[in-house]
Amino acid sequence: MDTQHHSRNLPQGLVDELTVRFGSRFSVAEAVRLHHGKDESSHPPMPPDAVVFAESTEEVAATLMCCNAYRTPVIAYGTGTSLEGHILAVQGGVCIDLSALNNVVAVRAEDMDATVQCGVTRKKLNEWLNGTGLFFPIDPGADASLGGMAATRASGTNAVRYGTMRENVLGMTVVLADGRILKTGGRARKSSAGYDLTRLMVGSEGTLGLITELTVRLHPLPEAIASAVCTFPSIVAAVNTVIQTIQVGVPVARMELLDALAISALNRYSKTSLREEPTLFFEFHGSPASVQEQTTLVADIAKTHGGKDFDWATRPEDRSRLWQARHDALWAALGLKPGARALSTDVCVPISRLAECIAETIADIAAINLPSPIPSPIVGHVGDGNFHVVLLIDPNNPDEITRAHDFATRLAHRAISMDGTSTGEHGIGLGKRDYLIPEHGVVAIDVMRAIKQALDPNNILNPGKILPSPK
Amino acid sequence: MDTQHHSRNLPQGLVDELTVRFGSRFSVAEAVRLHHGKDESSHPPMPPDAVVFAESTEEVAATLMCCNAYRTPVIAYGTGTSLEGHILAVQGGVCIDLSALNNVVAVRAEDMDATVQCGVTRKKLNEWLNGTGLFFPIDPGADASLGGMAATRASGTNAVRYGTMRENVLGMTVVLADGRILKTGGRARKSSAGYDLTRLMVGSEGTLGLITELTVRLHPLPEAIASAVCTFPSIVAAVNTVIQTIQVGVPVARMELLDALAISALNRYSKTSLREEPTLFFEFHGSPASVQEQTTLVADIAKTHGGKDFDWATRPEDRSRLWQARHDALWAALGLKPGARALSTDVCVPISRLAECIAETIADIAAINLPSPIPSPIVGHVGDGNFHVVLLIDPNNPDEITRAHDFATRLAHRAISMDGTSTGEHGIGLGKRDYLIPEHGVVAIDVMRAIKQALDPNNILNPGKILPSPK
Repeated sequence: MDTQHHSRNLPQGLVDELTVRFGSRFSVAEAVRLHHGKDESSHPPMPPDAVVFAESTEEVAATLMCCNAYRTPVIAYGTGTSLEGHILAVQGGVCIDLSALNNVVAVRAEDMDATVQCGVTRKKLNEWLNGTGLFFPIDPGADASLGGMAATRASGTNAVRYGTMRENVLGMTVVLADGRILKTGGRARKSSAGYDLTRLMVGSEGTLGLITELTVRLHPLPEAIASAVCTFPSIVAAVNTVIQTIQVGVPVARMELLDALAISALNRYSKTSLREEPTLFFEFHGSPASVQEQTTLVADIAKTHGGKDFDWATRPEDRSRLWQARHDALWAALGLKPGARALSTDVCVPISRLAECIAETIADIAAINLPSPIPSPIVGHVGDGNFHVVLLIDPNNPDEITRAHDFATRLAHRAISMDGTSTGEHGIGLGKRDYLIPEHGVVAIDVMRAIKQALDPNNILNPGKILPSPK
Repeated sequence: MDTQHHSRNLPQGLVDELTVRFGSRFSVAEAVRLHHGKDESSHPPMPPDAVVFAESTEEVAATLMCCNAYRTPVIAYGTGTSLEGHILAVQGGVCIDLSALNNVVAVRAEDMDATVQCGVTRKKLNEWLNGTGLFFPIDPGADASLGGMAATRASGTNAVRYGTMRENVLGMTVVLADGRILKTGGRARKSSAGYDLTRLMVGSEGTLGLITELTVRLHPLPEAIASAVCTFPSIVAAVNTVIQTIQVGVPVARMELLDALAISALNRYSKTSLREEPTLFFEFHGSPASVQEQTTLVADIAKTHGGKDFDWATRPEDRSRLWQARHDALWAALGLKPGARALSTDVCVPISRLAECIAETIADIAAINLPSPIPSPIVGHVGDGNFHVVLLIDPNNPDEITRAHDFATRLAHRAISMDGTSTGEHGIGLGKRDYLIPEHGVVAIDVMRAIKQALDPNNILNPGKILPSPK
């Protein structure tokens, strides 16, 4: 049971070395440890034994060199917004808080790229880009750090058009387990020069190295933007609209599904007054003519599936309100059941299986509502085939926890059986390790273990995450 | 000097085992070995000791298991069109010819993906897709196999719009050094489930595993296509047109530079009658209105840089002729100097440095033309910042070879000093290993070596490629 916190004290030599080096920026205070021991998942908190507040790549390297010498686990901490227990100190150890590495190092508008320290959040980068005519599109719900987003291969509402962190990171600075500083990638738009270490680090969840700096692609702000809301007689009708839109190749920028329950939660939390029916939020980017063309085409497709008229958010402030509401869906959902914790699923399937996967999942949601209700709104980046069921469970009710976990397991296996994945964008972390072999097979996991062993022979980097425990 | 062919016989036990298993599909005939010992680079041929003609993943696995037991090198062979000596048997060993693995396993039009065996070529896949409304965009000059294209992280003329093999491979079947069969990735459009083994294998040039099957993304055939040719008063004027087009965010499908010498070679080889001036070939994809909008915008940009009127290739057969001519540029160039071999460079730089990089390179071309001329046309996928200088050298003139190699080295270092790469799409192979440390640094190469050691501890997979020899 490596998910239990092995409470233990750090080696005194390590404490001494880190104290000398970091002074008050090395802390074993309980409040500090507790703050760094929980994320936004439903996993119970597991605090680290100490926290280092690093301010540079070199300080991260020094910390790792020390911890490696003492065989002490190290966990990176950005904004604490992970959704699968990524930052929990399951084996104790030292948490490195990277939020002070928050400088935008360079914005090169002419090359449409930017280099940032890992602690810069997506909103901060976009504020910084104000006036350049460029933006950074990846937008998970939280205002996460770019380092954390790279580490979990995050995406969000714009991925259907602009890709995920996989497509948008050009290069990185990564501190390895033994403190060596690795540079990956470069600024060329493409390269065939050697193994793709950038993509190996993206999605490695702090288990192969700590990302301290990254160069990301930027995109031109579209000349015209149009956002619309459309409601449907059923969730399957909405999903079929999505499928057809993707299949005819409309370059939609955003296409988000929310079921009636999710809309009801939004209305309450965000003071919106949307019809509480299965709903798609759309956004279209392009030239005015292209946006016009896209919207006409998609409105026609929606109509053939029983969609009502598009309800337009034309003013920028209305658009911002709409998308902020969408980003707040997780927090809005929590309002449906006071005191609940949210267990969010994250499957992603090929678009041809999406309607079937959602229909089976809706039936399963109905089945877990007894003996006590588990409200479970559905939201999703359905243009990618990705959707979330947000299961609201009473953390003090073991039966609800069991029902929710069994549901999540069935859903993950359903997606995998449809050639999909257990996680489209949240990552494996603690909670999805058991799905990795069913999804990728034993050989793939053996290869992942071999790579982990080669790069982190002492297993100090975020131990207990991603890779399933050997049986 | 591991670039010399260590001629040696294979272990008799290995020969016996492969003969029993493969019969006449195991060959040590000289003609067969010679055929499999050369590619389209300027490197002298180095034949393997034997060739296995495999017909399935399981046969590849059986061959690797045998060769690994005997510590014998293994080299994958697709169409023999690599450009950096990738398939040369620098340490002898067994070549596995994969061209018989040429089935299209599945085309899933509704998901816009296809699964193919590694020996399927890009043209065969596109013929197969005829009538589906979909196409596969990646197009290196040669009609290469998709397995080989994945192994070298290939791209081509469409990459500026559709990405490279990095973005277009969803998953793979890969045989590991010891014969285990690895499945990577899946069919979901995005996933955060574990290390990105797909991207690790893409571009690994047969040094980490042999790709036997791959699932690739397909794209909707554009509703409208327009191709045009535009000539410019100088190559820098043409490049500045490219830079501005990219920076304003026009989604051009293709944007290819050819200098006057390259055009002259094309006219002779392809019987075209293009003006022999610095030229851009454009292609625009989209709805009729969007194509109209793009072409108007780009024609205006070209005009401000002194570009002449666009010369349109409107009929499909004219378009095909234009792009076939572009794809034949390497063979056309060879016509400029009978008996020559072509050394093709492949740098790629951030777009803001492209004009400067090309201008310095043109000056350098002028400098290497004495005492004997080395005709050196320039062609390039300049929308990506990628261009090739095709140096036509007399293989019997050591002075020309030295001048050309020194030029290529200067060009690679020039690109690296501009935050670019020594290879945008050809790969490292034999010829670019010395640039890997200057480009990525010692730590990155140590990490690559650690991964290689973890996955291929006996160093049997395409030894002597990618990784520089330890000093």
